[in-house]
Amino acid sequence: MNEKRTEIAALGEFGLIERIHSSVIIQNLTSQKGIGDDAAVIDIGTENLLVSTDMLLEGTHFDLSYTPLPHLGYKAVAVNVSDIAAMNGKPQQIVVSLGLSNRFSVEAVDALYEGIRAACQNYKVDLVGGDTTASHAGLVISITVIGRSEKNKTVLRSGGKANDIICVTGDLGAAYLGLQVLEREKEVFRSNPTMQPDIEKYDYLVGRQLKPDARMDIIYELEEKNIVPTSMIDVSDGLASELFHLAKNSKTGIKIFEDKIPVDSMTYETAVEFKMDPITAALNGGEDYELLFTIQPSDFEKLKNHPDIHFIGHLHDNARQHIMISKAGTVVPLQAQGWKHF
Amino acid sequence: MNEKRTEIAALGEFGLIERIHSSVIIQNLTSQKGIGDDAAVIDIGTENLLVSTDMLLEGTHFDLSYTPLPHLGYKAVAVNVSDIAAMNGKPQQIVVSLGLSNRFSVEAVDALYEGIRAACQNYKVDLVGGDTTASHAGLVISITVIGRSEKNKTVLRSGGKANDIICVTGDLGAAYLGLQVLEREKEVFRSNPTMQPDIEKYDYLVGRQLKPDARMDIIYELEEKNIVPTSMIDVSDGLASELFHLAKNSKTGIKIFEDKIPVDSMTYETAVEFKMDPITAALNGGEDYELLFTIQPSDFEKLKNHPDIHFIGHLHDNARQHIMISKAGTVVPLQAQGWKHF
Repeated sequence: MNEKRTEIAALGEFGLIERIHSSVIIQNLTSQKGIGDDAAVIDIGTENLLVSTDMLLEGTHFDLSYTPLPHLGYKAVAVNVSDIAAMNGKPQQIVVSLGLSNRFSVEAVDALYEGIRAACQNYKVDLVGGDTTASHAGLVISITVIGRSEKNKTVLRSGGKANDIICVTGDLGAAYLGLQVLEREKEVFRSNPTMQPDIEKYDYLVGRQLKPDARMDIIYELEEKNIVPTSMIDVSDGLASELFHLAKNSKTGIKIFEDKIPVDSMTYETAVEFKMDPITAALNGGEDYELLFTIQPSDFEKLKNHPDIHFIGHLHDNARQHIMISKAGTVVPLQAQGWKHF
Repeated sequence: MNEKRTEIAALGEFGLIERIHSSVIIQNLTSQKGIGDDAAVIDIGTENLLVSTDMLLEGTHFDLSYTPLPHLGYKAVAVNVSDIAAMNGKPQQIVVSLGLSNRFSVEAVDALYEGIRAACQNYKVDLVGGDTTASHAGLVISITVIGRSEKNKTVLRSGGKANDIICVTGDLGAAYLGLQVLEREKEVFRSNPTMQPDIEKYDYLVGRQLKPDARMDIIYELEEKNIVPTSMIDVSDGLASELFHLAKNSKTGIKIFEDKIPVDSMTYETAVEFKMDPITAALNGGEDYELLFTIQPSDFEKLKNHPDIHFIGHLHDNARQHIMISKAGTVVPLQAQGWKHF
């Protein structure tokens, strides 16, 4: 096409997004915040409208050999809703575009929509439109979600200040290990199709991979307690990568404590079984869809007894210093690995 | 998966959409109009928000062997903007999701965004977000557009009344014949790669296929003349199919006149060259992205001298009678063919 050819891998996903972002010109006053947060922010007068989109491609994001279609439909909605949660917003509408190959029957489409509908009910979201088309490759699911937040309660990645406390919900690394279990069982089944899959004991991990939930429960609880996080992001690419996004946008440094990172015991044991460091799985595994946010120190009292919110460290002034204090008390520089699809 | 397997082709695209639509439950009061129009309508207080999404898949919607990437980027935006135009709205924001295979270089992505940016400038739309991911199949482009209209000026497919005049903009069938020309030249090139492509004389048709424009100009002109169409749709699947959508939603019959259907002379001549009936190309060819709308008879005076709006017939009371009066004066029943991707 052109003489010069630069591989996308040379830029990476974030580099590519930066490149696209840098050439964008904004023309409408209603476009408050564009590329570079979990959702775009659009001014609709009394409230902010939040818009986010996620595309799931067969072969890149899911493997139909072990992914039940209702779970996939549910997950496709949940990952979008999670982006609205990460803005401290509430989802209201989705549009769903599907690319379907002729492998798919009407019954398969029904199964996919069964999951989409279940997620819509759970998150109180309306399916208001979409596009359905034939695909010559695999299954393509593209969803755009529209949500709202009060104007002074929209939370960006950029609002964190030194001394703010870093909070994360739930536990981390489980979805990544669930994927490892599923991939291993697939290999076992391939080499010996009479083998029964051995995934029951990994139920929790596999469930976290196949049917994650957006943490809207946390958003409603924060509202009840009258807490507005200073910055927030959802954990889709791994804790370390998300911490870097918050730090970069908030122009702060990060200090976290290894022993505060929430890891479920099944995640821990399975990581060991797979000869992985459990903390590495929590830091760099993806698809947890938990919320990572920062709060003012004065809000700590209101949250400190919450059973599902963990306080893993704090922001500080040195924007170039991102560190983890290990269980042994040593200082480890944090590294953002993130997902490399390309 | 299930015992029963029904092919999607047995339902067709519209049947599949109906099936999805019928199982949807609306939970939010802000969701004013869901599946079944060119865009969803969301109540944002003083105005209506309009949301539409379109997915373009390599192999189904475009062939990169003859589609320049800047044109493709432009078209992907234009077809979405056209849906907002069809609601009598003005587009303001888009989010763009891309699935890219490793065939694509950074320079190729730049070329695609060159077209996306050109369309954004032309239609005064802001690119505010998206998702970029690796694709193991071909190129996937999914765009969601957000627009607005004044509350009492949103035009649905359902507002047409008997005696309303049916109007269509521009000319029809050209994009379809442009595609035929491109496909023929591709075959010629395949069998003899030293042949020079012979598409210059088909410039207009090829341009209509590769780089269509949304008719926002018409929307602004209707506003100036203080005309609100009674019903509207964009011509993406062919005139006949769109007429059926208007008739079904407005619960009216259709009467059009063959000699009033606008067909460009190049479309006419090329259809003859391809041994096709030009009117069939206009009725059943797709991707014109012109506007098809109905107006109250009292508005006719204000539009009658418009050089690019054609009055092709009218709605009538018998909702089961959709007819065309041929040039010879005979009555021909209209048939909606539409596109069959499946």
